[in-house]
Amino acid sequence: MKTQEHGRRRFLKEGATLAGMALGVGAVRSASGQTPQSEISAEEILAYGKRSRFVGSARVPAPGLPRVWLNPLQDSAGIITPSGLFFVNTHFDIPDIDPRRHRLLIHGMVERPLFFSVAELKRLPFVSRIHFVDCVTNGSDRRDVSKTVQHSHGRFGCSEWTGVPLSLLLKETGLQQGARWVVAESADSGQWQRCIPLEKALDDCMVAYGQNGEPLRPEQGFPLRFLVPGWEGNINLKWLKRIKVVDVPYLEMPPKQPVSGHWEFEQQVASVITVPSGGQRLAGRGFFEITGLAWSGAGAVRRVEISTDGGRNWKDAQLQNPVLPKAATRFLFPWNWGGEAALLQSRATDDAGNVQPTLAALSQTRGVSLDHWRSHNLPTHTGAVQSWEVTRDGNVEKIYA
Amino acid sequence: MKTQEHGRRRFLKEGATLAGMALGVGAVRSASGQTPQSEISAEEILAYGKRSRFVGSARVPAPGLPRVWLNPLQDSAGIITPSGLFFVNTHFDIPDIDPRRHRLLIHGMVERPLFFSVAELKRLPFVSRIHFVDCVTNGSDRRDVSKTVQHSHGRFGCSEWTGVPLSLLLKETGLQQGARWVVAESADSGQWQRCIPLEKALDDCMVAYGQNGEPLRPEQGFPLRFLVPGWEGNINLKWLKRIKVVDVPYLEMPPKQPVSGHWEFEQQVASVITVPSGGQRLAGRGFFEITGLAWSGAGAVRRVEISTDGGRNWKDAQLQNPVLPKAATRFLFPWNWGGEAALLQSRATDDAGNVQPTLAALSQTRGVSLDHWRSHNLPTHTGAVQSWEVTRDGNVEKIYA
Repeated sequence: MKTQEHGRRRFLKEGATLAGMALGVGAVRSASGQTPQSEISAEEILAYGKRSRFVGSARVPAPGLPRVWLNPLQDSAGIITPSGLFFVNTHFDIPDIDPRRHRLLIHGMVERPLFFSVAELKRLPFVSRIHFVDCVTNGSDRRDVSKTVQHSHGRFGCSEWTGVPLSLLLKETGLQQGARWVVAESADSGQWQRCIPLEKALDDCMVAYGQNGEPLRPEQGFPLRFLVPGWEGNINLKWLKRIKVVDVPYLEMPPKQPVSGHWEFEQQVASVITVPSGGQRLAGRGFFEITGLAWSGAGAVRRVEISTDGGRNWKDAQLQNPVLPKAATRFLFPWNWGGEAALLQSRATDDAGNVQPTLAALSQTRGVSLDHWRSHNLPTHTGAVQSWEVTRDGNVEKIYA
Repeated sequence: MKTQEHGRRRFLKEGATLAGMALGVGAVRSASGQTPQSEISAEEILAYGKRSRFVGSARVPAPGLPRVWLNPLQDSAGIITPSGLFFVNTHFDIPDIDPRRHRLLIHGMVERPLFFSVAELKRLPFVSRIHFVDCVTNGSDRRDVSKTVQHSHGRFGCSEWTGVPLSLLLKETGLQQGARWVVAESADSGQWQRCIPLEKALDDCMVAYGQNGEPLRPEQGFPLRFLVPGWEGNINLKWLKRIKVVDVPYLEMPPKQPVSGHWEFEQQVASVITVPSGGQRLAGRGFFEITGLAWSGAGAVRRVEISTDGGRNWKDAQLQNPVLPKAATRFLFPWNWGGEAALLQSRATDDAGNVQPTLAALSQTRGVSLDHWRSHNLPTHTGAVQSWEVTRDGNVEKIYA
């Protein structure tokens, strides 16, 4: 605490920058006299809690995409996304699976094909780790319909996941000579399939059954999810029912087809300022803590820099502990707003040395103007710096810079 | 992953220890043919999620104490306790506070008494840290009515808390000469008060408004909680409305009285096996992952040892990362149960060198027999080793050892 605060000036200088905070001692009575408006019956909420009726933060559908529900990052705190607000990107309905009837099959180029019930999986050694899941389209939606950080980066969440290491399950089944890839399949009506190299499967993938200390929520894959840390969100297959070990990358499900061409799995280093962010309004001049999240599929975040003047000057933000690999990292940056127009940007660097490009730099590479992005989505896998303009009247708006 | 698994034998030896797991490839069709029983409408659950209807884990009232609701630790995973299952120990009704009307007053021996609204607090620099809250009576309830780990240790939870460092707020108010203690007061009808030394207040205390990435739940102190990491749960005052800086420890609220005598704040090093634990039944011989939680108010957990034979032999459990100070630490220990009677115990050591005593050792110190605890509560602040007996038929029962 002392370390963090060390060297910072007081936030409330003479005259109290935050209006209405200074008060005489005579007000004690009024403080003690505060009484709640009503009380909540214990039985009503104590078996499994509910939020306060005064808390309304919620997922919202992505514009034009009714099956994509976005994480309200503007309300986020810390690095954990509560399960009830974790983003959802589905292509079919959410299955209502009875875990007593669900089975995971591991087969294909294995020595012993095996079925696992959920209860059997829960008896095995497990790991719990904090990891993000980030949709490949996150941050690429630059159209003008997308004005808030919930719209631009709400296909992101970070939780503590618990499950069985896939490496352990594949040790049980054994692997045949020539096994090189793993195909995972979902139990929803889409029978979604995703294919990853065996090397990743044996590295840090898990068959997850827990999220944030309780069973996965239905919309997050209950009862089993294929967790592939740091890789594209869509590979983190939900409602996992089958893992097939194969020799070449292919997908069986409709249509049955081998997969060829370009493979890109890992999520780039990225960051976004969540407060202040698009659609918010600064309530008067004075101190603000600029904060946001950074992450990288390649490892841990090493550094986040902040610019308040559109990239002319960059200063290091403070990273909050713990800074974990392939997990959200919370950054903070003290800012005293004097009422001037400002352009807020964050730029993350990961421990592999990857740095986020600005949208301007990216545009130059692609040979298009910044205005181009008003009517086009950014390509995926760019992790471009997000820019928030603060107008003189305190409004925060998304711009292309 | 590889490191963790390294050196472990396969869990399923010939004949598949977990019954019914081995299966021919012919079963693929049946696996693919699994269809969910029904589907859930997206709008119903996606704005703010719900659990699966097949998940019933819940808080239960402590026997004879209707205002104490216990965390179902037997179902816990990882180190995060979901907010909806975090233990509750109240003495009065839970207030239903409108955060727009709530104020925190800091006064007493300060230079500038200040009121803070919740919105003003949220503009200030904040910290997010993972910490446990542990009731001083946790683990001391040894009466025979208390048979499960939820009963014995369910007054415990661990979450990511977000809030403003109290040191920062006290820097804003300034401190008068002679200020030595801090009294915190709650806004519920009990107007609960707790008093801590200024040194702790300036160290790592915070005025918390967030838990696990969202606002505090009503039963956890919405909108503000006095978080005092590592210290007795009851000091972590909920519905915080007032902090008074004073010179000597005292409590104003009924009756107005100075406080004297013995002060003991810090929660001892402790641990408990959550699986297998009291009331559970081992479903047949074979491999089990013994797991549980350890913690210490003095710092980080350095070591957890497991005995399966009532303390004759101890072996190190694996500690899962991250191992954080004043936070729950998850431990794992592979165990192959051959059907014999067993006595499972965990013993934690923290990085200050404190070690949990066994109940037998504690009894000797106190000059009572182990049977004594069948009809008496253990004294608080012991952190005694919890013992689970596994009978030959696989039942797990609490015993005094």
